[in-house]
This record gives sequence, structure tokens and C-alpha cells, in this order.
Amino acid sequence: MTAFDHPHRRKNPLTGRWVLVSPHRNNRPWLGATEVASTAQLPAFDADCPLCPGNTRANGETNPVYDTTHVFANDFGALMPAATEPAAGAEPLFQHQVTDGECRVVCFSPEHHLTLPEMSVPALVAVVQTWQQHYRELRQRFACVHIFENKGAIMGCSQPHPHGQIWAHQHLSTEIELEDQHQAAYLQAHGSALLADYVVKEQQQADRIVCQNAHWLAVVPYWAAWPFETLLLCKDDVQHIDALNPAQVESLAQILKELTSRYDNVFQCSFPYSMGWHNAPSDGQPQSHWRLHAHFYPPLLRSATVKKHMVGYEMMAESQRDLTPETAAAILRQVSAVRSF
Amino acid sequence: MTAFDHPHRRKNPLTGRWVLVSPHRNNRPWLGATEVASTAQLPAFDADCPLCPGNTRANGETNPVYDTTHVFANDFGALMPAATEPAAGAEPLFQHQVTDGECRVVCFSPEHHLTLPEMSVPALVAVVQTWQQHYRELRQRFACVHIFENKGAIMGCSQPHPHGQIWAHQHLSTEIELEDQHQAAYLQAHGSALLADYVVKEQQQADRIVCQNAHWLAVVPYWAAWPFETLLLCKDDVQHIDALNPAQVESLAQILKELTSRYDNVFQCSFPYSMGWHNAPSDGQPQSHWRLHAHFYPPLLRSATVKKHMVGYEMMAESQRDLTPETAAAILRQVSAVRSF
Ligand SMILES: O=P(O)(O)O[C@H]1O[C@H](CO)[C@@H](O)[C@H](O)[C@H]1O
Ligand SMILES: O=P(O)(O)O[C@H]1O[C@H](CO)[C@@H](O)[C@H](O)[C@H]1O
Repeated sequence: MTAFDHPHRRKNPLTGRWVLVSPHRNNRPWLGATEVASTAQLPAFDADCPLCPGNTRANGETNPVYDTTHVFANDFGALMPAATEPAAGAEPLFQHQVTDGECRVVCFSPEHHLTLPEMSVPALVAVVQTWQQHYRELRQRFACVHIFENKGAIMGCSQPHPHGQIWAHQHLSTEIELEDQHQAAYLQAHGSALLADYVVKEQQQADRIVCQNAHWLAVVPYWAAWPFETLLLCKDDVQHIDALNPAQVESLAQILKELTSRYDNVFQCSFPYSMGWHNAPSDGQPQSHWRLHAHFYPPLLRSATVKKHMVGYEMMAESQRDLTPETAAAILRQVSAVRSF
Repeated sequence: MTAFDHPHRRKNPLTGRWVLVSPHRNNRPWLGATEVASTAQLPAFDADCPLCPGNTRANGETNPVYDTTHVFANDFGALMPAATEPAAGAEPLFQHQVTDGECRVVCFSPEHHLTLPEMSVPALVAVVQTWQQHYRELRQRFACVHIFENKGAIMGCSQPHPHGQIWAHQHLSTEIELEDQHQAAYLQAHGSALLADYVVKEQQQADRIVCQNAHWLAVVPYWAAWPFETLLLCKDDVQHIDALNPAQVESLAQILKELTSRYDNVFQCSFPYSMGWHNAPSDGQPQSHWRLHAHFYPPLLRSATVKKHMVGYEMMAESQRDLTPETAAAILRQVSAVRSF
């Protein structure tokens, strides 16, 4: 019995967290909750949608009649500019910090019914350029700029018009701080960047690769926690999304289309996920330890309606998965690169 | 504007993770996914339930006709005894460990339709004693014994018969290792146990207390991530659940009934949650830094059908909450201590 068919743990080198892998458990019966697959046929324009072109939002603002993307301040953002100087409390058991930040909504397309895999490569280039433009502006004022998308009702997405969000703040969030520490320690210990080495090794081993092109590599990482989790890695020495050149942007638009199309093909549904970019902190420190990457965390496990529950053991101990990352990668490789339904 | 109505972060001293608190966001409209509240009237006995007394499970084993609790090996456990000597791989980007462990299912009651708040205090004493008995046996062989309950279909519970699980293994899970390090560092720095000091300070401040009795304190911790998260703390210097004396066990049964009844009363439903015990590691090291405690992580946010989604930002950055822990504690204090529907 090798490590890969007996229960084992794998360590995430970006965070130091472990995941418990139990390959033999993949075939247990499931009688628990099922989700509702979103099969609704949506119109290209919905007069009640707060993101459609020309519509008026709850706060009275009217969206322009936009052609590609449109960005506005989140009307219900979790962050806002600080009214006073951000203060902190250092009592060890009651530590807090007042935060200063901004939340924006990024409409990916004027068309209400589209999702990323259904958009054209030029339209996806426009999305990436919009991310770049807002990132470039926000990183002047904020050390930590989170660009992400919640896709699908199951992922808490409050409405279906294709969109993502940008939350920017001065402090480093917990995940960025962890990844920053681990990447810095790796550079110190090995003299090379963690994810630069990882790109090379995954290309050698090949069994966790989902797809790749000139500038990007998509793998189910060795330490994936979610069943079909992927890590989208820039092959070049880039730390911030606004530093991508036109060739890298074009190549990114292509792989975003391919990766999300492969997801949709696994269960022949609009595959829900949360995805987000991890840029290096914009804090003026040297950043050669960091490599620009995006995480995709999709919840589905067995079908369009049965997801993985990260509950009890996962909350109290550590993440747990059934199918191995190698199996998940093989499934994602076997389906068509083109959305096929 | 104080720290408590402006967006701020709070730090979890047990893990070092921060949570973003955005009190002003509590009133944003919700048009996203809703959950199905479980309103089904269940029978006291279900001939198809694998946990009911006298029934035969899928593997051919027959449950005894039990009166109080019943424990059996999980037929689809994520852990199993290692066939060979557990091996480890130390390549920095591909670290793994073969694990050795056991998974058990703990039926809380023979009656199919009950939940913890609906059980009598003596019946709950029997549950605690069952936890103690299996913990005592498993800690001889395993350093880390996780006792937990997933309650409700929304929490991935695969069937409704009242039950929890025990997963035991030799390695320390990620959460236990983190809590162990943080509690040890606190003892080193302050000369007292982190959670011992915390019990005293929460009793002084009072505004996060949900309920308490002779030996136990239930608070919405200062750093709570889930809307109605609670921390159940032993007031006495106890590190392992099997070390609780009969008075502490009786007092625990009482507060388990009260806390879960208060939960049910918030939205007049069987309140879903994952709960779990955090015992000190059984690794032969001194453990005066550790205090026995349980975490309750309930997902509901606004009603029996609207939960908090820990998605996008929460996955990529850190947990985020809308209502403050102080508001959540006030709500839990205001409802009846007795299940009232
Ligand atoms: O109760 P079950 O069916 O064993 O499984 C449930 O609890 C486990 C431990 O938290 C999780 O890994 C599963 O995702 C969840 O569905
Ligand atoms: O898209 P919304 O409605 O802003 O909100 C969604 O994304 C946020 C950021 O990940 C989460 O905090 C919410 O729980 C989720 O429902």
C-alpha cells in the first residue's frame, strides 16, 4: 500500500496547514443534503437586476449603458474609509484594529446571462484589464487588494449577473500574511521562490496538471483541500496583476476560459466556485519571494447537487478530502477544453 | 465612532487568525440562496435508519437494542489503522505523512427524533460519560482525539438520528497544533493559562456571556467568526474531558441543554451547528497551558433559512462577520433558556 491509497496528510507550503486525504472513502453512500443546481435560463437583460446596464440601483444611482465591464463602489461594502485615524487595542485577549478600506463590484459583462466560460477571449481580456486598472489605483493607497469572484448561489453569490468584487485595505489579511511568511521563509532557506520551484516540479511530475499555455499553469495542487480545487500560477516572475504585459494578459484570458469550461464540463452544469487573486503585499518591501497566483475553491464533490461539506472535523481539526488531487486532475483533463453543452 | 460600530478586525488568540467585523453591513438586502429549514416530524423509530436500535447496517452488523447511547466503528471512516509503519515524505513542496487512526459513531439516544436540547439532563449525562469512556480508551493510543457533532443537513449531517463522531489519530491536527502553540506561548509570556484568564475577564465584562453555571461558561467569544458562534469553557483547571468529575459532568449536561435550547429559540427551529471538543494533546507533555473547551460553529445568520456564506473574501483573506459578538450574545441571552416551541 503506497501513501496514495492509504489515508495520509499533505502539507500546504503556502500556509503550513495540513489536509487529511482519505481515498478509500470516495464511495461511501450519500443520503445527506443535496443542493439545487442552477438550471434557470436567464435573459440577456433583466430590468430588476442592479448590475444590468442602464438600471437604477437601490441607492438611486444609475448604471451607465456599458459595453464591456463596469465597476462601482459596493453599496453594502464590508469596509469603508476610516472616519478617524485607525486605532488598535493591544490587550492580548481582546486585540482589535480599526480598519480603513474600500469595496467595489466589478461587472464582467453587460449581458446578464453569461458566465466567464461563456464569454469570448477578447471579453475576458477586458475583465483582466479592468482588474489591472483598479488594482493599480488601489495599491497606491492600500497594502492588500483582494480581487475575487463568488460564482453560484451555493457560494453566497447574491445575484447571477456575472460579477466579482474587489476589497482593499491597509492591513494584510490573515491568508496574505501567512502566504507571505511562508514564501519569504522558503526563499531564505532555498534561495529560490516557492511557487517558481513549484511550477517547475509540477511540470516535471505532470499528474496534477489540468491545462497550461505560454504564461500560465493550472494544477490541482498537491495539498488541495476542496475536491476540484485548482491553483492558477503565472509561469513568469510576476508579483502583481497590474504588472502583467499584454501577452501575459491574453494568455490569462485564454486559460481562464479553458479552466472554467473544464469545470462546467465535469458535471454538465455552471460549476460554482470562489476564486481569488493573491498578489504580493503592496507595502514597499522586496517581493522576489512571491509569485502571482489565483486559487479556485469549488465546492462540488460528486454531482451538480452534492457538495463537500467542510464541517465538524474540518472545522475543529483540518480539511479532509476523499478523492486524491491526482484523480481530480485526471477528471479535469479528461473532459473537453471547450464548454460542451 | 468607536471601534464597535466602524469596521474593525479582532484577533483570535487561540489561532492567531483575525476576523473582519462590519457591523453596519447587517442590514444589507439578501436575495441570494436560502436553505431548507428542517421541519419534518420524525418518528421515534425508523426501520430504515442505520443508527436506530435493532436495525442492521449496510455492512451487515446489527445494532443492539440500546437504552442510552451506542458507539460503533464508522463504516466509512476517513481514518483506519495503518497497514504499515506510518511513513513521511519531507520534500518541502510535497510533504506528506501516512496516518494511523480510528473513526467511531456515537448515537446519543435510541430515539430517532430527538436532538440534544430535547433530551433530559440524565440522558445528556450519559452522552458525556460515553464521550469520557471512549476518550479515555483512545488517548492511550492516540495523541489527538476529536469528539464532534454535525447537526442538521446544512452541516453535512448525513442522517437525522441524534449522533456525533470521534476521530482519533497519532498526529496533532492543524487546529490542535495551532491552539497548543498559542496557549503555550501565552503561559510562557504571562505565567497563567490563556483560557483561565479569559474566563475571568469575560465574567468581568459580562456582555458576551450567553449562560453559565457552577463549572461552565458559554460566551460568544470576542473573536467569533460565525454569527452565533460560542465557546463553552470549563471554569476549572481541566485539560481532558475524561478528567471531569461527576459534578462537572452534571453541570456540563445542564449547560449543553441550555445552550442548545437557546440556539433553537433564536429562529424557532432545530438550530444547525458543528460542535467539537478541544482536549489537550495526549502526548505526555505538561499541559497546564491548556483548558478544556468546546466550540459551537452554527451557520445561520438571519433566519432559519438564511445562513452566513464563508466564501470569496473569507476563503481568500479572513473570516468576516456583520453583527458584532456582543449583539449575538445579547440575542442568545434574551431568548428563553427553555426550548419554547
Ligand atoms: O457525517 P458523515 O457522513 O460522516 O460526514 C460528515 O462529517 C464529516 C466530518 O466532519 C465530513 O468530512 C463530511 O464532509 C460530512 O458530510
Ligand atoms: O456578494 P455579496 O452579497 O457581497 O456577499 C457574498 O460575498 C461576501 C464576500 O466573500 C461574503 O462576505 C458574503 O457572505 C457573501 O454572501
